[in-house]
Amino acid sequence: MNSVFIATSIDGYIADKNNSIDWLHTIPNPENSDMGFSEHFDHIDALVMGRNTFDLVRSFDCDWPYSKPVFVLSSTMSSVPKEYEDKITLISGELTQIVKDLNLQGFNNLYVDGGITIQNFLKADLIDKMIITTIPIVLGGGIALFGELDQTLNFKCIKSKRYVDAIVQNHFERTRY
Amino acid sequence: MNSVFIATSIDGYIADKNNSIDWLHTIPNPENSDMGFSEHFDHIDALVMGRNTFDLVRSFDCDWPYSKPVFVLSSTMSSVPKEYEDKITLISGELTQIVKDLNLQGFNNLYVDGGITIQNFLKADLIDKMIITTIPIVLGGGIALFGELDQTLNFKCIKSKRYVDAIVQNHFERTRY
Repeated sequence: MNSVFIATSIDGYIADKNNSIDWLHTIPNPENSDMGFSEHFDHIDALVMGRNTFDLVRSFDCDWPYSKPVFVLSSTMSSVPKEYEDKITLISGELTQIVKDLNLQGFNNLYVDGGITIQNFLKADLIDKMIITTIPIVLGGGIALFGELDQTLNFKCIKSKRYVDAIVQNHFERTRY
Repeated sequence: MNSVFIATSIDGYIADKNNSIDWLHTIPNPENSDMGFSEHFDHIDALVMGRNTFDLVRSFDCDWPYSKPVFVLSSTMSSVPKEYEDKITLISGELTQIVKDLNLQGFNNLYVDGGITIQNFLKADLIDKMIITTIPIVLGGGIALFGELDQTLNFKCIKSKRYVDAIVQNHFERTRY
């Protein structure tokens, strides 16, 4: 079970025209709801993220946020920076094979993160669930969550929940008709 | 109050790569739910649509579906085809002025339809409400609902409802913080 948990604007962007994600916090969240993140995180065995997402998380002014194994997809990074040696594992290669290998190692529920990585998993039809939190803003440009695909993919919305009276989170599950 | 009522794929397309909307009917709808359409239609005074949408509706193998006045935006059509003379009115010009004129004629609640027309209304910040029905399919390409904007627009999700256990409809209302 490979899942996505990500926030987008109404028009489907994960970052704005300036590559910023400040707009994620447009809506006041007085009770500091995690909008289902910890529940999602409890169900996964490991994370698979792209190099860009790894660099983004590193840039945050906070401790390493993940308490589970993180696999970073990169064809260019040759070694893990010293301070991340106990936190991440570099992987590269063909995605279907990577997923098989991780499953054999006992990592069956993968949290797939990062725009390009999610697009590549979708291209290989390796996404089973997408939890998409829609921040109610139209950005008018930026980095899109979805990209071009050769085939269409059918899902089913199994759950929809609003948060802080403004944000909506839709849970989509892959279906084969 | 100008509103949008439209269906998109998960990746935000209103038509697929072949300009088709057949995928709108991917999900079985045994009870023939109109997914809120008649409730939406009850609240509007008139429709404003682009030329492409008018041509699309004309191409459907059914009677003219609208029981309320329809204004068709076109800068190229010089006259209304004979059989539509009692159904549509051609309009052109600057959108803010068009909306003012329609409001003066008593058409206060406008249903704005068609991709380009919706984008132009958003550019002029003339959309107050968007009811977006998400068909749970990733198309991987096609005609996008949203386009480039110079400014960001804040909304609020005031309602979310699932239909036929698979489709989700989110209601967004414009807010000014």
